[in-house]
Amino acid sequence: MRFEDAVPWLHLHRLTGGGAGLRQLLEQFGSVDAIYAAPRSELLPSFDGDQAPVDAVLAGPDAGHFETERVWLDDPANHLVAITDQAYPPLLREIPGPPPLLFVRGDMALLGAPQLAVVGSRNPSHGGCDNARAFSSQLTAAGLVVTSGLALGIDACAHAAALDAGGQTIAVAATGLDRVYPSAHRELAHRIAAQGALVSEFALGTPPRREHFPRRNRLISGLSLGVLVVEAALRSGSLITARLAAEQGREVFAIPGSIHSPLARGCHALIRQGAKLVENAPDILEELGALAGFVAASPGAAAPTDATLNRAQQELLELIGFDPVEIDTLVARSGLTPGRVSSMLLLMELHGLIEARPGGRYQRTS
Amino acid sequence: MRFEDAVPWLHLHRLTGGGAGLRQLLEQFGSVDAIYAAPRSELLPSFDGDQAPVDAVLAGPDAGHFETERVWLDDPANHLVAITDQAYPPLLREIPGPPPLLFVRGDMALLGAPQLAVVGSRNPSHGGCDNARAFSSQLTAAGLVVTSGLALGIDACAHAAALDAGGQTIAVAATGLDRVYPSAHRELAHRIAAQGALVSEFALGTPPRREHFPRRNRLISGLSLGVLVVEAALRSGSLITARLAAEQGREVFAIPGSIHSPLARGCHALIRQGAKLVENAPDILEELGALAGFVAASPGAAAPTDATLNRAQQELLELIGFDPVEIDTLVARSGLTPGRVSSMLLLMELHGLIEARPGGRYQRTS
Repeated sequence: MRFEDAVPWLHLHRLTGGGAGLRQLLEQFGSVDAIYAAPRSELLPSFDGDQAPVDAVLAGPDAGHFETERVWLDDPANHLVAITDQAYPPLLREIPGPPPLLFVRGDMALLGAPQLAVVGSRNPSHGGCDNARAFSSQLTAAGLVVTSGLALGIDACAHAAALDAGGQTIAVAATGLDRVYPSAHRELAHRIAAQGALVSEFALGTPPRREHFPRRNRLISGLSLGVLVVEAALRSGSLITARLAAEQGREVFAIPGSIHSPLARGCHALIRQGAKLVENAPDILEELGALAGFVAASPGAAAPTDATLNRAQQELLELIGFDPVEIDTLVARSGLTPGRVSSMLLLMELHGLIEARPGGRYQRTS
Repeated sequence: MRFEDAVPWLHLHRLTGGGAGLRQLLEQFGSVDAIYAAPRSELLPSFDGDQAPVDAVLAGPDAGHFETERVWLDDPANHLVAITDQAYPPLLREIPGPPPLLFVRGDMALLGAPQLAVVGSRNPSHGGCDNARAFSSQLTAAGLVVTSGLALGIDACAHAAALDAGGQTIAVAATGLDRVYPSAHRELAHRIAAQGALVSEFALGTPPRREHFPRRNRLISGLSLGVLVVEAALRSGSLITARLAAEQGREVFAIPGSIHSPLARGCHALIRQGAKLVENAPDILEELGALAGFVAASPGAAAPTDATLNRAQQELLELIGFDPVEIDTLVARSGLTPGRVSSMLLLMELHGLIEARPGGRYQRTS
């Protein structure tokens, strides 16, 4: 989004705090233009009768109030994506309470690519970090983007391994993207911006706040087909992410460990609650394959012939065609959910039936 | 069973090989006496037209052919239990193909007590043996008998820990009880005979045979409310025991471990197939409590008041009364399965509502 187009969004984002308030306005009025065109009497209830923000909406957006954002958006690496944009990640749009505006630094097209979240303890064991690295590099090698939260520990191990493997990774921040938290990850954040993407729903300048971390966690799972919990204590942030993932209808995967390790307890609790126990990355790929409904989905297996595609898959493949097409278009054409379409596309890509094109688009290869 | 009563059983046991053949005769004719009273024409089909064993049945049992058994039964520690006896373990009677005759050395009443099978690799890790020991001593402390297969590795660790904790343990042998296999466990077998019980469905003198081990394994699970697999490789005997347990409708429990340990793979496979992941003995007791339908079944919890007993439990408690009563009687009175009755009794015992009496009988305490 160009700065001029962004200003009306940034103005509303600032007035509402960016989350539920802005979503509510959009649902009520239908578009940003309609919000600005609304009479005072209709706006007032949305602001609980508070005159000041209503006055501000009625006064209209003023580019002069967004100098920080103007400078930030001048950097071609930085982007703003609104929920009404085609480029908004389709899986994220599906969750309860999707963020209306996303700040992105890096490769914006990655947001629509099939992602697996890899999360876990901020104080992992050496073995836990090794596991995070091994899964992360195998998942990226299989064509998945590894998404995590830029935190210390497992998050950092997962991001770094994806980068080291030449793969792609997305970090979802709980601060404005002009800050890096924790500051020890400044270098890592730069690498991610260069080779992947940083994402935040929070305005520039937003410092780390306790209440923002669970909001951030719902984006990590919301962007992803599933969440892998590598190591986690009971009552940890990773378990919150896993719960949010389950509520969003995403797969939850957990790595078991010794019954004497406190960091395995969280994973064991998840497995008891129905998370899939996984020993290696192919376990995850198989499960995502089953999700997409493939008969044989293990990586390295022969590409399925038409006979092994079920009817829904065959129909989706026919909808794709040989010109690049966006996921949203396929969702509209097929009537399937974005989650279903994304995982079917991922598996078709792994099987070489289609290929990903710039801009989150796909086309048939044969 | 006294030797004189045993001879007709031992004779048929020897002629039929002791398993399916003898069960079939009993089902067809209804009793041992009826088998001996049957005419040649009715016996022949049961022996596939083979005249020799039919001649032997018609000639009748001859005590002189069972000198080894006579001497063995002279030892007051040794017992024979037929499937038609009251003392036959009720849970075992429930399985498909229960053994018609059991050889028992030690405390025969234990066979009817609530048991948990603890099994695993013959070549466990030190940690695996430690886990087997810890679970085993906690399970015996909670009033369960630990049942296993007298094998090297996890079996031996489980038996020894139960004995060391002053608890009770049952070893199911794949040989005749006048032999010990493996011979390295001669001392352990003696301790078990003195403080628990050895059980076999095989005639005295039977050497270890490959095909007898799965038959033995079905007894380990058949005697037990559930099976705990401590450490197991993929494609191992422990997984066979777990499969048999599931087929018999028994609970399967498995201890997770590092994804890098080959001995955790079998447990992880079981968990994926629906086995309960357990981290400690209370996890097992809770699950057995849930099985019995108690509202709060964690050990150490307050004894349930009448209000926390559901209707089936309250009814069972009323059937028990203040005179000792056998499980079989309660099964007949309640119309519940022996498995259900056994686990309900176990939990009532753990809660102090009833107490176990000699001969596998129970009575109310209040």
